[in-house]
Amino acid sequence: MKPVKVGLLGLGTVGTGVVRIVEGHQEDLSSQVGSPIIIEKIAVKNTDKDRSVAVDSSKLTTDPWEVIRDPEIDVIVEVMGGIEQTKAYMLEALELGKHIVTANKDLMALHGAEILAKAHEKQCDVFYEASVAGGIPIIRTLIEGFSSDRITKIMGIVNGTTNYILTKMSQEGASYEDVLAEAQALGYAEADPTSDVEGLDAARKMAIMGTLGFRTNVELQDVTVKGISQVSKEDIQYAKRLGYEMKLLGIADREQDQVSISVQPTMVRTSHPMAAVNGVFNAVYVYGEAVGETMFYGPGAGEMPTATSIVADLVAVIKNLKLGVNGLQTIAPYKEKKLKSDDQILSKNFILLHVDDKAGVLAQITQVFAEYGVSLESVVQQPNASTPEAEIIIVTHNASKSSMDKVLDHFEGLEVIRGIKSVYRVEG
Amino acid sequence: MKPVKVGLLGLGTVGTGVVRIVEGHQEDLSSQVGSPIIIEKIAVKNTDKDRSVAVDSSKLTTDPWEVIRDPEIDVIVEVMGGIEQTKAYMLEALELGKHIVTANKDLMALHGAEILAKAHEKQCDVFYEASVAGGIPIIRTLIEGFSSDRITKIMGIVNGTTNYILTKMSQEGASYEDVLAEAQALGYAEADPTSDVEGLDAARKMAIMGTLGFRTNVELQDVTVKGISQVSKEDIQYAKRLGYEMKLLGIADREQDQVSISVQPTMVRTSHPMAAVNGVFNAVYVYGEAVGETMFYGPGAGEMPTATSIVADLVAVIKNLKLGVNGLQTIAPYKEKKLKSDDQILSKNFILLHVDDKAGVLAQITQVFAEYGVSLESVVQQPNASTPEAEIIIVTHNASKSSMDKVLDHFEGLEVIRGIKSVYRVEG
Repeated sequence: MKPVKVGLLGLGTVGTGVVRIVEGHQEDLSSQVGSPIIIEKIAVKNTDKDRSVAVDSSKLTTDPWEVIRDPEIDVIVEVMGGIEQTKAYMLEALELGKHIVTANKDLMALHGAEILAKAHEKQCDVFYEASVAGGIPIIRTLIEGFSSDRITKIMGIVNGTTNYILTKMSQEGASYEDVLAEAQALGYAEADPTSDVEGLDAARKMAIMGTLGFRTNVELQDVTVKGISQVSKEDIQYAKRLGYEMKLLGIADREQDQVSISVQPTMVRTSHPMAAVNGVFNAVYVYGEAVGETMFYGPGAGEMPTATSIVADLVAVIKNLKLGVNGLQTIAPYKEKKLKSDDQILSKNFILLHVDDKAGVLAQITQVFAEYGVSLESVVQQPNASTPEAEIIIVTHNASKSSMDKVLDHFEGLEVIRGIKSVYRVEG
Repeated sequence: MKPVKVGLLGLGTVGTGVVRIVEGHQEDLSSQVGSPIIIEKIAVKNTDKDRSVAVDSSKLTTDPWEVIRDPEIDVIVEVMGGIEQTKAYMLEALELGKHIVTANKDLMALHGAEILAKAHEKQCDVFYEASVAGGIPIIRTLIEGFSSDRITKIMGIVNGTTNYILTKMSQEGASYEDVLAEAQALGYAEADPTSDVEGLDAARKMAIMGTLGFRTNVELQDVTVKGISQVSKEDIQYAKRLGYEMKLLGIADREQDQVSISVQPTMVRTSHPMAAVNGVFNAVYVYGEAVGETMFYGPGAGEMPTATSIVADLVAVIKNLKLGVNGLQTIAPYKEKKLKSDDQILSKNFILLHVDDKAGVLAQITQVFAEYGVSLESVVQQPNASTPEAEIIIVTHNASKSSMDKVLDHFEGLEVIRGIKSVYRVEG
């Protein structure tokens, strides 16, 4: 049977994995799709580089346009990264009737709607399973597995770098700086780790999952983001003492038609299955009105896990190609987006205050919470041996973001409070 | 747009959930499939029964044939259970060109190959997501999510009744009989619990997953089965002391082309994510050569979770109907089945022996293991305060089933051994 020809943009870690799987699993793959799959052309930065897979040098080019405009090529697999230029490649590929498989979360979070609209117009497939949680097939689960349900909450540990750092800080009592340096040495963190540690990478993935789960067009600017660079080893020890693990947790939730999406360091109750997701692993917890609690766990990155998701998408594109139904199964978001106001965003909160160690302070502080209608689950005051300060550790019941902001504003003006040391969301 | 008409066979717990979702989520569903979905006819045992959903009595019939032969009906949703008679209904429905969604694991484990072959012949869809692990979309994950990978191991906690019983026994130190009685009172166990507690239900689900994961036709008789009715509270306490939780664990594994599938009470290392799956929850752990470790967790049964899987399948059938591609995506198992021999089935094992409390016994016993090439991870001998016996607790390294059988046979003939109290597989 006539082989399906694939053009690959990028031959870094993930691209290499794609070549390995397409070549190594050729028999299994062609049994499923009914014809051989050939990687016809590969765009790379440097054609002379030594590589860990054998690739016929005649297939390599430094010009992505050569891949995109090759009339023999049916499907483009994009694993080169980048945003604006890559978007131009993708739109041109679609214009030429080629289907796309991409692992590019940045591209999909920022320009997904435009790319999917063009794909719809051209009756092409654009699949992007690998863009969220590497080896976990969470995108098809959200689209197909839960098509009948109404999802009300998606929680994700979707950034392996930060989860590695927080796990190490928790297990070894190490500082953020030390573990980050170690993670960089091991290749788990980039030389410039900003996008990971400041939560941007996780925010992009949450925007993609929120769009699919709530069927409304969640954009990156809709996601409230706070990273982990301010998390201290003391914070993590407080969390543990109270029965929580600190996680960089994305939460997308929905009540009626209103949604909120955020990524922030969160204390997760130890008994919750998400608290046990350690190291570079990812997990996505989905709550549906009918199904209840589900969780999907696996590797979030890496050459081979990410490549399995890409090649699974490639198999899906090729099956559609054989059936002549590419581009017909996409469901565009059909619900008007309504974001929750700060009055409607509820969470439990952990607050650590340093205060003057004298009588009446605790009463003054609890009075502030009462004034803004925030009720408390627990309050502990303890002297700090080395200073004339005391620590007050507060866990609230569910409180609105706006009330909490007012409480914290009020605290700024209170003389007895020497410092608001930490504030974290609490989950479970 | 012309509505799609569905015939429902059965209106018990799950059937009621299907009606609730199709009616309650009508707007979301029709946004996805492009037309209304109508439940046109329902076959029930008793048309006069009071029900927790409002159903127009004119839709009810006591004759399943009336539903199957209704020319208006496009899709049959089978939630009545049963095997031989139900198979006849399914084959006739396919003969008439109707698509099928079923939750019937018994039917699919026993006659899946025949039903799927008929579906292929008639270009009809047969989807059965709800037959394994209720609300967890594991079947589409095995078919589509891991289409590019080579799965080498599937482990499943796929029977909620037994997991509830073992969890309670572990958490409360209760006996099997007491917890079973309680589970029956709560409706978590049937009046006749045999199919659950003897592992048959789990075996059916493992046969279905093994077929999909290994792309070979795993039949029910290929699954070695042992249930939990012999598990004592003492066994569970031993497990805990050694750092394990007792689970009824299905394991399907593959090495090269050879597979083995079994369901048996297994001591699972506490640090393994499967050890934390408690109560009526289900989980499936999948290991792929490329992706590595993944796990899928959620409710294994219940009205609404099971109904979400059924209606998700219904959405998939209707999308295919609109695209005209029903029955074209099924991949029949294409690999010749080769079962591992007992020499090739390896596991760690826990053995509890009661022996004469005298010198030299331990040496005699460890000699037997050595004779059959089974190496030991740990051996503990302890006196039993109330009798002249001692207990010997052994954990082996990986050993073949045939070697272990020889060791146990040999033990039967040893005078110093008063009883082989327990033997369990150990995982992780």
